[in-house]
Amino acid sequence: MTKPFLLIATALGASLSTFAAPALADEGMWTFDNFPAEQMRKDYGWAPDQKWLDRTRAAAVRLTGGCSASFVSNQGLILTNQHCVASCLANISTETSDYLLNGFRPATRAEEKPCPGQQAEVVTTIGDVTGDIKNAIGSATGEALIKARDARIAAIEAAGCPDKAKTRCQVVTLYGGGKYSLYTYRKYSDVRLAWAPEGRAQGFGGDPDNFNFPRYALDGSFLRAYENGKPVTPAAFLKWNPRTPVLGEATFVVGNPGSTSRLWTSSQIAFEREMRLPVTVATLSELRGRLIRAMDESPQKRSEGQDDLDGIENSLKVYLGRQKALNDPAFTGRLAATEAQLKDVAAKNAAIGDPWTAVDGAMAANRKLYLASRFIRPTSDLYNYARTLVRAAAERTKPDAERLPGYTTSSLPLTEKTILDPTPHHAWVEELYLEWSLSKAREWLGADDADTKLLLGKESPEGLAARLISGTKLGDPAVRKALWEGGQTAIDASTDPMIVYARALDARDRELTRLANAEVNGPLTAASAGLADARFAAFGASAYPDATFSLRISYGKVAGWTERGKAINPVTTIGGTFERATGAAPFDLAPAFAANEAKVDKAVAYNFVTTNDIIGGNSGSPVLDKAGTVIGAAFDGNIHSLGGNYGYDPELNRTVVVSAAALTEAMRSIYPSPALLAELGVKKR
Amino acid sequence: MTKPFLLIATALGASLSTFAAPALADEGMWTFDNFPAEQMRKDYGWAPDQKWLDRTRAAAVRLTGGCSASFVSNQGLILTNQHCVASCLANISTETSDYLLNGFRPATRAEEKPCPGQQAEVVTTIGDVTGDIKNAIGSATGEALIKARDARIAAIEAAGCPDKAKTRCQVVTLYGGGKYSLYTYRKYSDVRLAWAPEGRAQGFGGDPDNFNFPRYALDGSFLRAYENGKPVTPAAFLKWNPRTPVLGEATFVVGNPGSTSRLWTSSQIAFEREMRLPVTVATLSELRGRLIRAMDESPQKRSEGQDDLDGIENSLKVYLGRQKALNDPAFTGRLAATEAQLKDVAAKNAAIGDPWTAVDGAMAANRKLYLASRFIRPTSDLYNYARTLVRAAAERTKPDAERLPGYTTSSLPLTEKTILDPTPHHAWVEELYLEWSLSKAREWLGADDADTKLLLGKESPEGLAARLISGTKLGDPAVRKALWEGGQTAIDASTDPMIVYARALDARDRELTRLANAEVNGPLTAASAGLADARFAAFGASAYPDATFSLRISYGKVAGWTERGKAINPVTTIGGTFERATGAAPFDLAPAFAANEAKVDKAVAYNFVTTNDIIGGNSGSPVLDKAGTVIGAAFDGNIHSLGGNYGYDPELNRTVVVSAAALTEAMRSIYPSPALLAELGVKKR
Repeated sequence: MTKPFLLIATALGASLSTFAAPALADEGMWTFDNFPAEQMRKDYGWAPDQKWLDRTRAAAVRLTGGCSASFVSNQGLILTNQHCVASCLANISTETSDYLLNGFRPATRAEEKPCPGQQAEVVTTIGDVTGDIKNAIGSATGEALIKARDARIAAIEAAGCPDKAKTRCQVVTLYGGGKYSLYTYRKYSDVRLAWAPEGRAQGFGGDPDNFNFPRYALDGSFLRAYENGKPVTPAAFLKWNPRTPVLGEATFVVGNPGSTSRLWTSSQIAFEREMRLPVTVATLSELRGRLIRAMDESPQKRSEGQDDLDGIENSLKVYLGRQKALNDPAFTGRLAATEAQLKDVAAKNAAIGDPWTAVDGAMAANRKLYLASRFIRPTSDLYNYARTLVRAAAERTKPDAERLPGYTTSSLPLTEKTILDPTPHHAWVEELYLEWSLSKAREWLGADDADTKLLLGKESPEGLAARLISGTKLGDPAVRKALWEGGQTAIDASTDPMIVYARALDARDRELTRLANAEVNGPLTAASAGLADARFAAFGASAYPDATFSLRISYGKVAGWTERGKAINPVTTIGGTFERATGAAPFDLAPAFAANEAKVDKAVAYNFVTTNDIIGGNSGSPVLDKAGTVIGAAFDGNIHSLGGNYGYDPELNRTVVVSAAALTEAMRSIYPSPALLAELGVKKR
Repeated sequence: MTKPFLLIATALGASLSTFAAPALADEGMWTFDNFPAEQMRKDYGWAPDQKWLDRTRAAAVRLTGGCSASFVSNQGLILTNQHCVASCLANISTETSDYLLNGFRPATRAEEKPCPGQQAEVVTTIGDVTGDIKNAIGSATGEALIKARDARIAAIEAAGCPDKAKTRCQVVTLYGGGKYSLYTYRKYSDVRLAWAPEGRAQGFGGDPDNFNFPRYALDGSFLRAYENGKPVTPAAFLKWNPRTPVLGEATFVVGNPGSTSRLWTSSQIAFEREMRLPVTVATLSELRGRLIRAMDESPQKRSEGQDDLDGIENSLKVYLGRQKALNDPAFTGRLAATEAQLKDVAAKNAAIGDPWTAVDGAMAANRKLYLASRFIRPTSDLYNYARTLVRAAAERTKPDAERLPGYTTSSLPLTEKTILDPTPHHAWVEELYLEWSLSKAREWLGADDADTKLLLGKESPEGLAARLISGTKLGDPAVRKALWEGGQTAIDASTDPMIVYARALDARDRELTRLANAEVNGPLTAASAGLADARFAAFGASAYPDATFSLRISYGKVAGWTERGKAINPVTTIGGTFERATGAAPFDLAPAFAANEAKVDKAVAYNFVTTNDIIGGNSGSPVLDKAGTVIGAAFDGNIHSLGGNYGYDPELNRTVVVSAAALTEAMRSIYPSPALLAELGVKKR
């Protein structure tokens, strides 16, 4: 399965309109060391205490595939979304067993199957290392700044987690470099699939219903963490609570929002609107078209391509929603008003200086580098293996301080796992992506561009993609293992066409990274200190950092909204599925739903919406009530939430949740799973 | 062949930056009754006299397929582009003869083949009917305004051209309704293909080279007009002049630019940038991807889909170029400055009023109607037949004044020709388009939208498209003829699924047209009088009207431009093709080029660029010198010209031309065509 973009971590959208100004109403993706208890108490008359927060944090899980999750039993059981295990379902499928279509419900624990590439991580400590890293940076600028910062980060991470088998350290950059925190994780690298419903049960309504509500999606699944071949006993787990959500009750979403851009300046927003989004929408739409048609060629291709298509369509909807937000003058006007407010504060405080002009310069440089940087790395899992193997061979011979991020002592274990795990690949999918990305490179860079010539030589995108995919052996984990372990000698000696190709692109790829650090990332990091100062001066602690795929907590409540004058009920019932079904895909019932209609309690709450502030990466996050029990798993945002990358609107932005009650009813009446129900503490009816 | 958008008429782009302000340098697409001779004389020391203009106008040809052309012999020979006859080449191809690939060069005139749907038209008179139509409109507004206007137009056209077999009358709306002109045409509805090179000779460099320069494209072809089975003798023809163009010499482009938007107000531009272009780029990119992949399925599909793919990729490049221009704050800033200038003039002239606010209101209404109007008419030639047949049956029973445009006495012959001509269709292409357009309708309107439900009922886009295309007999011209001649009775009795479907959509389709007239077109037409007055007050006669696919003349000169500090030579030679060839498509030589390399005079001028102001629809326009002789045919604009829909930049905007010299050399050395050369008056070497 090829993932051209960070699909899962864009799988959830968030919100519109208070706009990076002081967090209002339920806005904010808060770090656990800065929960705004006072503000919540003001709005809700109640806020969690430190014990509540600590216990919840200890049960919260990050999945390295790009999702969130939580421990829900003392036997390592992990709740997440079905769409977060879709790649795993595709990976473990065989010619005779289509688990993406049929789901996966092993009769016994012994039959639970490992998910390639998946790792579960639980935060154990959070420490502030801002001073340490700022000292290391000193007065360095541009490329030197990035090098000094990355070297210090590598050293802190290596020192913090000597036990590389069980722990992982990660320095999280907050406020674009205004603050740095060291997160230590207990990690579990053997994660197995324990339960997933049919694909159509999760995907009922398909792309048309995605990011919409009312909604009828059974987007839940369970994993289990293992160690030494046995289920782990986590430090904490959340209590399963399959009850009906109550209108107005307080809810918490605990997870890892992937990325937001709420602190961007106007020149960063302009780059997004004028350059990145138009290129992304045009190229991704074409990829979607190619894949849709290819999947028509055979039932096997339909099955093998489904997970990729879901990811592409999800991403595209996110980008189209962002484009719509940034093409709305009212929306961008509010962003501009907040920026003007910050500039006023900065004008009265000489220490802040003028970071905006520095950002403008960085974005001007970025406009020149962007297309080359985007297209120098062709899209294909097999190419990614080759690129990583080529880079790793060189980087591993260097001291930590000089390595590229991703290849330092602290990062290498996950990189190695990604290379060595036995993920299957379909040659036709790989070739489709590679041909597409090479032809888009030529289109956007131009036929006479030097990078196009480097990418293609005298070959066509179609011919080159066919030659590389048919010739490479990198789909075989044993071949990758030999190249990983063989180091530079093995890489130099390889005649695998994909390795040869990655070697040919490597110098230019590195040069573009170097230029980006020197001209874009370095200046942006330097400027961000000033921007963060302006923000703290203007808004104090109520300024939360942009999302960074690190653990956050959001508070809100169960609430509908008003759509074109009509009130949207915040809760659907399982019975609504049967009413919405038309018989034609994607509005056809999952077979087990149809077969068990008479048994199902149609009154059970199915999906519901809350005001929690989330975004892609939050998929799978537990939704908790005041008691700290799990009443559902977040899996989507509503359509209004798609501009939430840039700003949150408390009136319209909603998180979409699958209820614990519906998952429980499904495990009772549709996919009978008595052992799991018992493990979750659900009593028999 | 399905043409979802006005492909050919967007086949040529135009230009940047003087922006609808007074025409400067070589800007302007002038009507023949308002050629700016004085201004040209000032800039060039010479200008054509009335005799020159009259003779040229009498030889200029409009092709109803969306292109321009010219008579170049007294035996009805017509010069145009190869890409303007690509649909014809595809239509006349058989399973054993791929004319799009191999070209078409009949050995004798008897073998020249009719092009389905194609009609050649030559302007005979131009008269001002502004007063007449404005009187008919009187003080009507909204829907009533449009009805009154269209009724008067239908009456003027019917009265002007009683001989419907040989003439056509058309009232051309200029300045959005600020002025109306009656154009009468001598028409030739039997147009046959006389000469076309191989597809790769025209398409060398393919989509990557399209809208670029230097360029190496043999984009020329010849048609011949027939009447009563014999070649016609036109009233005038242009002398063929296969010579090298001279740097700086004056050039004229005479043709039918399809559409420009240089007179738009800021709210029209905003609608384009914020709504129409994003939807268009996303949906058209997906269509491109679907078709690219489908064409991989077999050599036959590759051949059958090529003409459509070329059209889609050409249109997409145009739209991406426009999006880029409107995402450039410097570009839109210049548009805004011109508008501010006009508003200043209007403020000093009470008679003009405030047309801008009226336009703002119309565009606000348009935003609400746009998606429904766009998607209520599914994309498929076979559906278009059904829609036209259903509408024609109803409209033809009404008096002219109450008919929809396209169904009035003056318009009906061309509509009928389109229905009855035996154009072939490929079921897989039709189904691909229909499935795509129905699924995009659901995506953009939403699954729960009333129009989506009208379009799909309980079917899926895939299922509905398959059912309609497999069930309809409208691909058969005899079936269409029976339904056309059978009128309302035949339509009502039909059980053809496509007719049934078109009947079901008809009421809503008409309602959306009515709403658009009432809320958008009516107010825009009323406002345009004020806008035109402001423009005349500010700029006098140097304000030319937006393009309307009616005859225009542009003057300019042979000139390169400066690209990133590098001077671009304005002329390429045939020899350059052989240097640029890589062997990999689309940079592989046409087989006849490769086979005849030794014979070709490589020094002959191939393509060249001029400063003429053109846009899509100008494809095939003769490029004339001061003597009025043909030195080439315009076929493209350079990449900078893509923003030219909104404004012209004399520094960067260039027309791309295939030289008469290169076409002559090809007819000598690559595709020996001695009879045609003799007809063109070319002497033997």
